Amino acid sequence: MRVLGIDPGLTRCGMGLVEGDVGRPLRLVDVGVLRTSASEPVAVRLVTIERGIDAWIDEHRPDAVAVERVFARSDVSTVMGTAQASGIALVAAARRGLPVALHTPSEVKAAVSGSGRADKAQVGAMVTRILRLDAAPKPADAADALALAITHIWRGGAQARIDAAVAASRSRTPAGTRPRTVTGPAPARRRA
Amino acid sequence: MRVLGIDPGLTRCGMGLVEGDVGRPLRLVDVGVLRTSASEPVAVRLVTIERGIDAWIDEHRPDAVAVERVFARSDVSTVMGTAQASGIALVAAARRGLPVALHTPSEVKAAVSGSGRADKAQVGAMVTRILRLDAAPKPADAADALALAITHIWRGGAQARIDAAVAASRSRTPAGTRPRTVTGPAPARRRA
Repeated sequence: MRVLGIDPGLTRCGMGLVEGDVGRPLRLVDVGVLRTSASEPVAVRLVTIERGIDAWIDEHRPDAVAVERVFARSDVSTVMGTAQASGIALVAAARRGLPVALHTPSEVKAAVSGSGRADKAQVGAMVTRILRLDAAPKPADAADALALAITHIWRGGAQARIDAAVAASRSRTPAGTRPRTVTGPAPARRRA
Repeated sequence: MRVLGIDPGLTRCGMGLVEGDVGRPLRLVDVGVLRTSASEPVAVRLVTIERGIDAWIDEHRPDAVAVERVFARSDVSTVMGTAQASGIALVAAARRGLPVALHTPSEVKAAVSGSGRADKAQVGAMVTRILRLDAAPKPADAADALALAITHIWRGGAQARIDAAVAASRSRTPAGTRPRTVTGPAPARRRA
């Protein structure tokens, strides 16, 4: 499974592509940041971001896209641009029929570090370890995008196990195949 | 001049097309609302809005697009969807190279009613009068979109007069053509 993580932003939009499955080592495919200049009109900046996301999807053909969920209570000076960029990311994925999921910052932190309150450095360090990199990806937006993709793969796996368990419990359950309780993170809403 | 006004929203996105110039009667070309269902995923709703806006632009070929500026201090429960929809509107215009402007709700109210604190009913009544309609366009989002388009035409006219005045004052000013002080509303930023 190939997942494109997008940490939306108008000045820096983090992009991270991870390949792998639950229970197997994950692999970094590509990581980077789309940048736009604050001296440009917002509409032009959003078009630049749209073209960048389109190019990433065309080049890497992800199976799914994971976007960070933006909250209105975030930093007011940047939140509108972040929300607009997230809208562009959602549309870029949905237009192609790609599954797209939103994960909150706390969900991402909890998935990669075990704590929903992990700081940027901890997330960067865990991403580095999980993907067996030589150094933490810079800037933090790039590391966050990879963390989103990792979260999506891991939560998707949890969801798949839950779906399988529910399906199995509905049918006759042969001895030895009784579904176990899933102890992983809460299931992600696959679409929001 | 043909201007498409867009009052962005996820549940109801107001669309209004007005034709005309400053100092001449304005004409309603088309008005309506793009609707999406809250039961659909946000990404799908945004794609529906994008397709709707694209269809309006393709059909009506506006010279410019005017979008309501969204503020983070707006109603928190809907502001993120509104911001995302506004991003889609900005990109739809900018992708085609159309000039796109943002006007605040206060600017729109002031332009059509003379008061930045006008209520929905007053704005609807003024839109009805300015465009010589039989009744106020419903719902309010549709009337707001028309008010945005009207504002854009009128402010664009003010901007054009200011530009002409500045150009004239920089050259030798022949008697009788001295630029007068523009007493209209403050110039709109044509791009934001």
